[in-house]
Amino acid sequence: MPELILRQVGIDTYHENIAYLPIGCEICRSQGFGALSKIEVHYGGRSILATLNMTENGLVKGGEIGLSHAAFRRLGAPEGARVSLSHPNPLLSFDFVRHKLEGGHLDKSQFLAILSDIVAYRYSNIELTAFVIACYQQSLTEPEIGYLTEAMIETGERIDWDLPLVLDKHCIGGIPGNRTTMIVVPIVAAFGLPIPKTSSRAITSPSGTADTMEALANVRLGLDEMRAVVAAEGACIAWGGSVALAPADDILISVERPLNLDSEGQMIASILSKKRAAGSTHLLLDIPIGPTAKVHSTEEAERLKKRFERIGARVGLQLRVVFTDGLQPVGRGIGPALEALDVLQVLQRKPGHPEDLREKSLSLAGELLEFSGKVAAGEGLDRAREILDSGQAWEKFQGIARRQGGLKEPRPARHSAPVSSPRTGRIGAIHNQKIARTAKLAGAPQDPGAGVYLEKKLGDAVASGEVLFRVFAETEEELSFALQYVAANPDLITIGG
Amino acid sequence: MPELILRQVGIDTYHENIAYLPIGCEICRSQGFGALSKIEVHYGGRSILATLNMTENGLVKGGEIGLSHAAFRRLGAPEGARVSLSHPNPLLSFDFVRHKLEGGHLDKSQFLAILSDIVAYRYSNIELTAFVIACYQQSLTEPEIGYLTEAMIETGERIDWDLPLVLDKHCIGGIPGNRTTMIVVPIVAAFGLPIPKTSSRAITSPSGTADTMEALANVRLGLDEMRAVVAAEGACIAWGGSVALAPADDILISVERPLNLDSEGQMIASILSKKRAAGSTHLLLDIPIGPTAKVHSTEEAERLKKRFERIGARVGLQLRVVFTDGLQPVGRGIGPALEALDVLQVLQRKPGHPEDLREKSLSLAGELLEFSGKVAAGEGLDRAREILDSGQAWEKFQGIARRQGGLKEPRPARHSAPVSSPRTGRIGAIHNQKIARTAKLAGAPQDPGAGVYLEKKLGDAVASGEVLFRVFAETEEELSFALQYVAANPDLITIGG
Repeated sequence: MPELILRQVGIDTYHENIAYLPIGCEICRSQGFGALSKIEVHYGGRSILATLNMTENGLVKGGEIGLSHAAFRRLGAPEGARVSLSHPNPLLSFDFVRHKLEGGHLDKSQFLAILSDIVAYRYSNIELTAFVIACYQQSLTEPEIGYLTEAMIETGERIDWDLPLVLDKHCIGGIPGNRTTMIVVPIVAAFGLPIPKTSSRAITSPSGTADTMEALANVRLGLDEMRAVVAAEGACIAWGGSVALAPADDILISVERPLNLDSEGQMIASILSKKRAAGSTHLLLDIPIGPTAKVHSTEEAERLKKRFERIGARVGLQLRVVFTDGLQPVGRGIGPALEALDVLQVLQRKPGHPEDLREKSLSLAGELLEFSGKVAAGEGLDRAREILDSGQAWEKFQGIARRQGGLKEPRPARHSAPVSSPRTGRIGAIHNQKIARTAKLAGAPQDPGAGVYLEKKLGDAVASGEVLFRVFAETEEELSFALQYVAANPDLITIGG
Repeated sequence: MPELILRQVGIDTYHENIAYLPIGCEICRSQGFGALSKIEVHYGGRSILATLNMTENGLVKGGEIGLSHAAFRRLGAPEGARVSLSHPNPLLSFDFVRHKLEGGHLDKSQFLAILSDIVAYRYSNIELTAFVIACYQQSLTEPEIGYLTEAMIETGERIDWDLPLVLDKHCIGGIPGNRTTMIVVPIVAAFGLPIPKTSSRAITSPSGTADTMEALANVRLGLDEMRAVVAAEGACIAWGGSVALAPADDILISVERPLNLDSEGQMIASILSKKRAAGSTHLLLDIPIGPTAKVHSTEEAERLKKRFERIGARVGLQLRVVFTDGLQPVGRGIGPALEALDVLQVLQRKPGHPEDLREKSLSLAGELLEFSGKVAAGEGLDRAREILDSGQAWEKFQGIARRQGGLKEPRPARHSAPVSSPRTGRIGAIHNQKIARTAKLAGAPQDPGAGVYLEKKLGDAVASGEVLFRVFAETEEELSFALQYVAANPDLITIGG
C-alpha cells in the first residue's frame, strides 16, 4: 500500500484512537476502508490500531492521514512523517468477549489477553462497550471478578514497598466534602505506620481527594518522588494518575460513565486493582449509606461488603469494611479549596472546625490503627484522638506537605453569594447530588476556589432569611449559573417544621 | 447558556451525531461538558442530541461549535447560525435497554420507544452497542424478535400496494454472483403476478442486487416512481435505500458490522421488517448451504427456517424457505457489470450463458409461482422455463428497464489479467469469501466494471496454464492489489487430482 503523510488534526476523542481519511480517497476505494473500519497505522517499526472517520472540506487532503490527539501521541511520529496502512490482524482477544457474550466463562489468561489489548488501545469504543456489557452485573461470577481484578493489576505498573504492612483507605464515594483521607493519613503516619496514599481526581464530583490536596501541596509525584516522601514521612498523599496503576480501569470508565451502568463487578475490580497495584496490604473501605448516597440500605451494604471481602482475599488484600452516615455532605466546604480549609481547621484544632469531619476521620483512623494489629481492639479511637489533639497529626501533615513541594494557602474564589432560608425551621434533608451539582456549576474542581460552603447542617435551627450556604465562583457568570440552579431546585435543602 | 456560532467541520462519523468544542472552553467548564458528554443542540425550534469530541489547534474556535456531517444535516441550520446548547433530558428508553441487560424481557411498546429514539439519532454508538449486545443471540426470546421486527417496521415508511398478493424473494447472502432476482422478477411479472422488488446495495460483498441492476438501469426510485413502474409492468427492481424502510436496521448494522457479531435475532428482524415494510405478503427465502457460505449444515438451516417461519407468521408475512447449493459462486461474473452480463446472457438465451444461474433462477421462479397458488404444485418450474425460453421474461425485463430510465450496456473495467492454473486436474473447491475479496480489491462495487470473471467452475477439467478466472480493474494499481492477494491465497481455487 502507498505511504501517506501524517497530520495531527487536533481532535480529542478521549481514549479512542481515531484516524481521518478523505471521503472517496484511493486507498479507501481499493482497500474497502470506510467509516468505522479499523486500520493499522505503521511508522518506524511501531504501529497503532485506529477506527476510521471520513472527512471532506479539506480537513485531511488526498495522500494524507489525520490522527486524533491520543492516536498521534501513541504513534509517536512527527507531523508530516510518511506512514503506511494495513488491514489489522484480527483482534483475537475479542473472540473471548464473544464467548462471554454467549454465556461462557472466562479464565484468567483470557481476561489478561483482553485487558492487554485494551491498555494497548486496540479496542474501539464499540468493542470496549461490548466488553463492559459482557461483564455487566450478574453475568460475572465471583471467580471472574477475581480474574478481572488480577488482570487489571497485571496490565499496569505495580508499586512494591517491601514492607509487611501497608495501610490504605478508600470510600466508594457519592458524599460531597468527604475529605477524611487528609486527616486519617497524618494520624496513622504520626503513630508510625506506613500509609502511602494514592488518590483520584474528581470524575463526576466537584472534587476528588487529589484535587483537594492539590490546594495545599503538589500531588503530581512520580514513583521516585513518592518513594522519597514515604521514606521520610511514612506517608504521602499523591495523585494516582501520575503512575499507571491499573490503566485498563480508566479506559473502561470512559465508556461506563456515559452508559451510567452501575456495574458492581467492575466497581469492585476497579477499587481493589488500584489498591493492590499501589502496593497496599490492608484496606479500610468506607461505604456511606443514605437515600442520596450510592448505597441506600444496610442490606445492600452488607451484601456488597461480603463480596468485597471475598474478592479482596483472592487478590491478597486484607479488608475491613465500615458503614458510615451518608445522609449529608461531610464538613462545610465542597470544592477543592473550601474542603482544604475544613481539613486545616480540624488538623489545627481551630474553634468552629467542622465536628462531623473530625469525628468521622477519628473513627476511620481508629479503625485503621486497630486493623494494623498494633493497637488493641476498642482503643483505636482514643489513640487517634490523642494524636490529633496533641498536634502530632498537624506536624505530620506539614511534614508531608513540605516534602510535596511546600504547604500552600487555599484561597476561596473571588465572587460569592449567600443563599438564605425561605422560612424558619430545622434542616430536614440535604441532597448530596444537588449540592455537588451546584458546586460544579460554580466551577469546581477546575477552579479550585469555586464551590459551596454550608453554614447549616442536618438538624440545625434556621430563621427565615438566615444564610443556609454560600456559593463561590471565579466569574460572575458561573456564580449566576449556580444560583439559577439553586433557585430551580428547592429540594436542595429541605427545611422541616 | 450563551449562544454559539455553528461550524460544519466536514467530518463523516457515519450515523453518529458528533459535536466539536474547543478544549477548556467556558461552556465546557461551567457545564461540566467533556469528551463523550452528550449535549442537545437547539436551532429554531429543532434540536439534535450529539456526543462531544474536544478539539484544539483551532479546528473550532472559542464561541463556536462544530458538527459532524450527519449532525449538521439533521439540525438543518446554516453555517454561521447562532445555536444554543443544553443538558439533554435523560434518554428514558435506555432504561429499557438496562432492563434487558439485567435479564428482563421487553414488550412491544418498549422496543418501539428504543427504536424511535434510534431513528431520531438520539443514541450514541456506545448506547447503540449496548442495545445490540442486549439483543445478542439467545437473550432475545421469539416473541421479542417479533416485537423488534414490528417496531422496526413501525419506525419507518411503509408501502401499501393495496393488493391481496405481493410476492418477494430474498437470499440471506454470502454467495458471490448470486443475481437470480434479476431473472426471477421478470419471469414472475411476465406470468402476471405483482413483484415490486426493493434490493440492497453491497454492505461487505463486491455487489448487491441494487448495484448490479444499476449497471443496467436507474435504481434510485422514489416511492411515486416505484408505483408508476409497478403500475405499468407489475414489477420493479429498485434500491430500497431510496425509501426509508425500517431505517433503524441500517443504524444498528453500523455497529454490528465492526463487531462481526452473528446475531440471529437481529438478522431475522432485519430481513422480515424490510420486506413487510415494502408491502410484501409472500416471501421466498433462499438459504444457501456450504462450507464457505453463511450456513454450514442442513441442521442449522432447518432450525433457522423454522424460526423465520414463526416470526414471519407473527408479522403477517407468509414464508416459503428453500435450501440451495452454497458451494461456489453462482454464474461467472462477480462485480456489478460482470454479473449484469451474466444476467443478460440468461435472459437473452445466448449460447454459453451460465447454466447454474439459469437453473437456480428457474427453480426459485417456479417456487414463487407455486407459492402464489396460481400454478399447481410440481408445475412451477416448467411454467417458469416456458416464460424464459419464449423470450417473455426478456421482454418484461426490457419493459422494467425502460421505465427505470432506459436499458444501459454494462461495461467491464479497462484493465484485465488472467489467472492460470498451476496444474492439471479438476476444480475441487472455490472459496466464496476469498473470490469476493479479490473482486473488492479490484474495485467492486465502487467501480461497476471491476471484479472477477470465472472461466472454470466446480468439477470442470483444467490443464496446467489454462485460465481459471480473469480479474478486471479500472486502474493498474487496483489490478495489481487484487493479483497480489490471489498469489498469496492458493486456496482461493483448489485443483483436485
